Amino acid sequence: MAQDDEWSPSSELLRDYQDPGTPPGTLRPAEGETGPSRIVVASYDASAFSITEPTDTAALETLRGDGRVHWIHVIGLADVGLIERLGAIFELHSLALEDVLTLGQRPKTEDYDQAVFCILQHLAYKESGLIKTQLALFLGSDFVLTLQPGGTDLLSPVRERIAKGRARMRQKGACYLTYALLDLLVDAAFPTLEALGDHLDVIEEGILDRPDREDIERLQGARRELLVLRQVLWPQREVMGHLAREDHELIPDDVRIYFRDCYDHAVQALEVSENFREMASGLLDIYLTSLSHRLNDVMKVLTIISTVFMPLSFLAGVYGMNFDRTKRLNMPELGWAYGYVGFWGISILAVAAMIWLFRRRGWL
Amino acid sequence: MAQDDEWSPSSELLRDYQDPGTPPGTLRPAEGETGPSRIVVASYDASAFSITEPTDTAALETLRGDGRVHWIHVIGLADVGLIERLGAIFELHSLALEDVLTLGQRPKTEDYDQAVFCILQHLAYKESGLIKTQLALFLGSDFVLTLQPGGTDLLSPVRERIAKGRARMRQKGACYLTYALLDLLVDAAFPTLEALGDHLDVIEEGILDRPDREDIERLQGARRELLVLRQVLWPQREVMGHLAREDHELIPDDVRIYFRDCYDHAVQALEVSENFREMASGLLDIYLTSLSHRLNDVMKVLTIISTVFMPLSFLAGVYGMNFDRTKRLNMPELGWAYGYVGFWGISILAVAAMIWLFRRRGWL
Amino acid sequence: MAQDDEWSPSSELLRDYQDPGTPPGTLRPAEGETGPSRIVVASYDASAFSITEPTDTAALETLRGDGRVHWIHVIGLADVGLIERLGAIFELHSLALEDVLTLGQRPKTEDYDQAVFCILQHLAYKESGLIKTQLALFLGSDFVLTLQPGGTDLLSPVRERIAKGRARMRQKGACYLTYALLDLLVDAAFPTLEALGDHLDVIEEGILDRPDREDIERLQGARRELLVLRQVLWPQREVMGHLAREDHELIPDDVRIYFRDCYDHAVQALEVSENFREMASGLLDIYLTSLSHRLNDVMKVLTIISTVFMPLSFLAGVYGMNFDRTKRLNMPELGWAYGYVGFWGISILAVAAMIWLFRRRGWL
Amino acid sequence: MAQDDEWSPSSELLRDYQDPGTPPGTLRPAEGETGPSRIVVASYDASAFSITEPTDTAALETLRGDGRVHWIHVIGLADVGLIERLGAIFELHSLALEDVLTLGQRPKTEDYDQAVFCILQHLAYKESGLIKTQLALFLGSDFVLTLQPGGTDLLSPVRERIAKGRARMRQKGACYLTYALLDLLVDAAFPTLEALGDHLDVIEEGILDRPDREDIERLQGARRELLVLRQVLWPQREVMGHLAREDHELIPDDVRIYFRDCYDHAVQALEVSENFREMASGLLDIYLTSLSHRLNDVMKVLTIISTVFMPLSFLAGVYGMNFDRTKRLNMPELGWAYGYVGFWGISILAVAAMIWLFRRRGWL
Amino acid sequence: MAQDDEWSPSSELLRDYQDPGTPPGTLRPAEGETGPSRIVVASYDASAFSITEPTDTAALETLRGDGRVHWIHVIGLADVGLIERLGAIFELHSLALEDVLTLGQRPKTEDYDQAVFCILQHLAYKESGLIKTQLALFLGSDFVLTLQPGGTDLLSPVRERIAKGRARMRQKGACYLTYALLDLLVDAAFPTLEALGDHLDVIEEGILDRPDREDIERLQGARRELLVLRQVLWPQREVMGHLAREDHELIPDDVRIYFRDCYDHAVQALEVSENFREMASGLLDIYLTSLSHRLNDVMKVLTIISTVFMPLSFLAGVYGMNFDRTKRLNMPELGWAYGYVGFWGISILAVAAMIWLFRRRGWL
Repeated sequence: MAQDDEWSPSSELLRDYQDPGTPPGTLRPAEGETGPSRIVVASYDASAFSITEPTDTAALETLRGDGRVHWIHVIGLADVGLIERLGAIFELHSLALEDVLTLGQRPKTEDYDQAVFCILQHLAYKESGLIKTQLALFLGSDFVLTLQPGGTDLLSPVRERIAKGRARMRQKGACYLTYALLDLLVDAAFPTLEALGDHLDVIEEGILDRPDREDIERLQGARRELLVLRQVLWPQREVMGHLAREDHELIPDDVRIYFRDCYDHAVQALEVSENFREMASGLLDIYLTSLSHRLNDVMKVLTIISTVFMPLSFLAGVYGMNFDRTKRLNMPELGWAYGYVGFWGISILAVAAMIWLFRRRGWL
Repeated sequence: MAQDDEWSPSSELLRDYQDPGTPPGTLRPAEGETGPSRIVVASYDASAFSITEPTDTAALETLRGDGRVHWIHVIGLADVGLIERLGAIFELHSLALEDVLTLGQRPKTEDYDQAVFCILQHLAYKESGLIKTQLALFLGSDFVLTLQPGGTDLLSPVRERIAKGRARMRQKGACYLTYALLDLLVDAAFPTLEALGDHLDVIEEGILDRPDREDIERLQGARRELLVLRQVLWPQREVMGHLAREDHELIPDDVRIYFRDCYDHAVQALEVSENFREMASGLLDIYLTSLSHRLNDVMKVLTIISTVFMPLSFLAGVYGMNFDRTKRLNMPELGWAYGYVGFWGISILAVAAMIWLFRRRGWL
Repeated sequence: MAQDDEWSPSSELLRDYQDPGTPPGTLRPAEGETGPSRIVVASYDASAFSITEPTDTAALETLRGDGRVHWIHVIGLADVGLIERLGAIFELHSLALEDVLTLGQRPKTEDYDQAVFCILQHLAYKESGLIKTQLALFLGSDFVLTLQPGGTDLLSPVRERIAKGRARMRQKGACYLTYALLDLLVDAAFPTLEALGDHLDVIEEGILDRPDREDIERLQGARRELLVLRQVLWPQREVMGHLAREDHELIPDDVRIYFRDCYDHAVQALEVSENFREMASGLLDIYLTSLSHRLNDVMKVLTIISTVFMPLSFLAGVYGMNFDRTKRLNMPELGWAYGYVGFWGISILAVAAMIWLFRRRGWL
Repeated sequence: MAQDDEWSPSSELLRDYQDPGTPPGTLRPAEGETGPSRIVVASYDASAFSITEPTDTAALETLRGDGRVHWIHVIGLADVGLIERLGAIFELHSLALEDVLTLGQRPKTEDYDQAVFCILQHLAYKESGLIKTQLALFLGSDFVLTLQPGGTDLLSPVRERIAKGRARMRQKGACYLTYALLDLLVDAAFPTLEALGDHLDVIEEGILDRPDREDIERLQGARRELLVLRQVLWPQREVMGHLAREDHELIPDDVRIYFRDCYDHAVQALEVSENFREMASGLLDIYLTSLSHRLNDVMKVLTIISTVFMPLSFLAGVYGMNFDRTKRLNMPELGWAYGYVGFWGISILAVAAMIWLFRRRGWL
Repeated sequence: MAQDDEWSPSSELLRDYQDPGTPPGTLRPAEGETGPSRIVVASYDASAFSITEPTDTAALETLRGDGRVHWIHVIGLADVGLIERLGAIFELHSLALEDVLTLGQRPKTEDYDQAVFCILQHLAYKESGLIKTQLALFLGSDFVLTLQPGGTDLLSPVRERIAKGRARMRQKGACYLTYALLDLLVDAAFPTLEALGDHLDVIEEGILDRPDREDIERLQGARRELLVLRQVLWPQREVMGHLAREDHELIPDDVRIYFRDCYDHAVQALEVSENFREMASGLLDIYLTSLSHRLNDVMKVLTIISTVFMPLSFLAGVYGMNFDRTKRLNMPELGWAYGYVGFWGISILAVAAMIWLFRRRGWL
């Protein structure tokens, strides 16, 4: 069920789910999606390349079987009917279609007989924070079907590479195209990590300089984003490891080696994010020691002031007493010619002594 | 042995157990259960569907073997005789029957020859907190037997789906029904997690706004509920993984793929709960830094007040001394025409200087 | 070597060991054991049951081979000669005998050719705290030999069950008896955990109410007992898992399923104890925040008092000064008719203003 | 994409990466590299040894096949054309070449058909901190190709050993040479760890002596360097384990045993670094307790001063009051002959009593 | 390379290593070793036993092949030539010899064709703290070669057992001797752990009694020793597990069961040390709460003193004011007959009220 539209800290970690008891394969528009979908079809072989944007699925039914690779990219997940027709045309499992429309899922891959199905999350880091966009991919013998929520086309860089006609891309078939797409998604973690690292650097600077309440809230925000990141990067690593390891007739051996490279990148992204988590918890330690230092400093000032002025105030109080001075022993100092000067002398001496003492203890 | 009836923090984690030395398979009424049990039998095949509520087990003895799938759902676990008769009719292992009647167990699955046995915990989140309800399930070749403690029928959504006659449900037999039931239980974790997440969000808001003792108690309560959740979700994931992986003649391959989907959901629920645990421990960090900040603030006020008024009080004390003013050097200031005005001037200057100083150190 | 007799925190974790360099199989009386041993022999088959308490091992030599199951239970581990004779009669490995006499060992199981050997720890919770009692068990083809230190007979409940003649018990042979005994030991963890849980609940109540130094010492004690518990429960789980999984001709398949149930209990006990550990560390967090809160409260009182009385004292000091009032500008307030009333007016106003301010900041 | 040139804490953990969407095998100059590359070729067999420094790759094309081992070492990674020609000559996979030019990667090994490819990081510890230098290695049947960024030749010690003609080195072929090179890189971790350990010792001394803000920043720096170290040492252990375990026709069995030794060193380096991490977090604990101690000390001084002088000031204030002494009960002490002396007597007695009290409580 | 001779905290964790680039198998005297080595040869079979101390290796060359077991124990690792000759006589791998001379290594075992090689660390706890002594062992078909640094002969207890002629020892050959030696080393961990446990108990007592700075330094020292212990005990467990599990023709099955017992001891030692680590970190928690308690106590004293005397001082100040008492409203109290007595009455009442209040809040 869709959550409320309002942002809340916990909603980053649990975005969307099917209501319990919903029959499997029940399709409903993806959360937050509206409007018609856009379909971009790229068909190519070593020699030719064409792009079309059919408005309906009718054109897709006759697409396959001409020896070319067809990449169908769907942008916008509100049109349940479209998804159903695609499922029928490409013989996709209804559970997979349900996953396509449930956003915020953990990356996974599933081997069906006719197709390999993957769910991945595209990561980006904008000013407003971390942005995950779910991308679903079906790899068939001669087609790749990708689906993303409405918005900017995330996969256009790959389409441009095909258009430019780089030889390997054009010759290696649907599986190599899949690799190129997954590689794009996996590598998108790195600029995200870089931005998050910069953000942590800024927080660290703030904390070392003058820690305040906002720093800790920003740090807490960054830690939560690192949690979200881990929620994506851990299973993404498993997905890539699965594709690089498992035998599947749709993944030829000469492409598998590319998936292995992609797996290495996924591992590295995960490691960096784990290390950022350690960095962030180190920042919390620094923050806490900073607070302790400041408390120490404040208390030192208070103690110094009190230690200096309490004895002096006592002395001034003594000489403000009204003992009957006609008695010889009662406050003879008050009658001395240099009594007042002596009082100041003693006061100044005492202050000097204390300052010397504080200095020796390192309090000043 | 049953624990006392009173709620206590530790009783959430250890609810019920058999007394040591009890012979295996000893049946006693489940803890807290009273009154007669309700039996709901749903029998169906692709074309027909019927519901009956027999008052005794006699009707069940002749049930099997007619080619239909029979789902017997028992609500209420106080009637030990009923459980024993069910065990005899469906040839269930006495250890399994004992488990059915011992509430608060960790989810598990056991393969017996005639049946697959599962224990799961249904999760819900009410105002009073997290509620676990144990559900036992036996899957046989043509029957599914489910047992739950008395109260609302947890599984009615599935019965309604069968009644509506969704094609797949009616055709795929007892194992698919088992999947539908387990899926319902696994997915129940998501609204629970959502509610718990909202609860954490409320606590976070409270802590950021003005942390008090109640916040920490509520946080501690939420952490304990997350422990209980983990106690359920970890083994539940294992159960689903076992069903999705192991070969068992009662689980056909085309249903196994549904269990795999269910396993994915179980993994996601577990991950979200683990991340909530990290969030909760992050909240504790924020809480502690908030306390430190407040202590710092209080101490600053004290230090500022002391630093301003201690020197001034000393000065006032000085001019309250009673040195013999007939001596020329003794407190001539007291005789000056502008002495008092000068005293106030110095005082105001001193206060101004200190305020400037505090401002520069960022204390104001 | 035996440790000193005095209790110490670390001795709970390392109770007893053989001196390095002791030849393997060297037998010495178990630590703390004295006096003669008691031997209880229960012999039974489906139809007959007899109990004898032979005073010597002579009677044991002719025991085996009559088709009945013989359970020899030895209470008291001081009589090394007895142990050696038992080893000779039942062909036990000298390493196992050494283990029998070395108390405080981690639970383990070892498959010898003629026998399966297990070491387990019986857990109990008395007022004085957690009590571990080591129990050794040898399972042969037609006998079970159990050995425990002197004291109450831990296994009498099982003997009573045999005496009562429950069918399964009498028919299933030595391995089922072994299961019954291990089940008793494993399940003894639950009342222990319940008592420890109650203890934690009491500590939590104390900490929430008014945390003092004793609470933290009791908490530390409970954490140490949880460590000891884990030291027992982890390997005990492994032992049960091994018995439930491994093929051994002495363990028939229809009994193995009972060991699996026992394994589930061992897992649950371990999980509960791990969760108690988390609860205990959560209590420490609460304790620390309570201390912080109290410090905050104390400091607030100090700051409020100082903030109220320091300015007032200064004012009183001012009007206690002795400036020469013949000069027109010197302290004219002192000569006013309503000077004193005005002083009190200002004082009361100032106090009221500060109370209002503190209230607004939430300090009161 | 290259990061900015400025150093920042997070940049140690994520140094360099390919822009998402870059076609695989796209070569660009390594980050920060400029100028021409230097090529050092060492060719040897049991009897002969020669070193050449060809300025172009032409000389390399005819190198192989003469029964000698050829070690080509390339220093400087700015010349993309050179790398491409090397790839062509030695039939290297384009993904491997891309890895060679992307610095800051995690150590890894990849088995291609014609060659074993390894990426390792050479560690050094200079005054400016930890320095990682990436080294790539290709092992072929009769050649070893190594590539490093510009700067000091990291591998010269091995070349000198070959030149000296140590028998084993000369006879065992390319794989043994690979071992010698990897061993050099793995062992470089030890002096680095030693330097880092010395650094930690210095920090510990500082913290025990007089903890200040700089200590914590240095400690935080050391912890970050230990993170970087772990990022290198974990996968490096995997690389060595892979080489020591996996069957590959290029790695004969008699050399594999050397890789096993190298693996042991890698494990030890990792363990030491993990223990240093624990040491560092222990230092943080000490630091925090030191701060607490100091706060305690400061507060004790304040409390002692206040406790001594507040009652005395009050007493002095009392005898400064102006009650009308013509009334008999009003302040008769002021008229006593020994009033003032008595005041001082009481004061001194009070101070003495307090000092005695503080001493007994251990505050002095 | 050898570290400096001075002790430093980090040097416990990284003691000695070969300089990077050192050719494998390069032998140099072990760090800190000087003087000639002592060789003790014990030769025995079931009927005979002889000990010799040859001064040269010549006598060793003809030793083997007479059907007896030969145990050569070398004390002192400075004589590189001796080690080399031993390597030649017993056909030992040069990598193993290098390991023998590099002290401070992690325990490991390596299967060579002719021999099984083990490195272990003997643990002892003296007043100066934990002492590790490295022991190397080669097991051949009819010989055992052990090597230790100079000092007390660590293995003499085993030699005495052989001399006493315990039957099993004499009959079971070289592998059983190996077991006896390893068992001695593994069991040496227990008295060490006991001593360390006693040390922790003393620290705990100190912390509960009156925590001071020395306690924390001793605690930190104990934690570091536990790290060192773990560095030894983890791999030692692996070594024993390897010997108890792996098939090797030099380890007959009837001895393997002894290694399994030894493995159990290694596991228990490791577990105890891990639990001590938890105990030590629990002590840190207690220490920190003790500090907090003490701060709370100090602050309470300060607050009580301030709260009592500040208002009283203010009151005394009020009656020290000099308002012109010829005006009717100005300080009439000063003229009352019972003014002074009333002042003291109010003061005493106020103090009593505050003490009552503090008592109710539990501050006294």
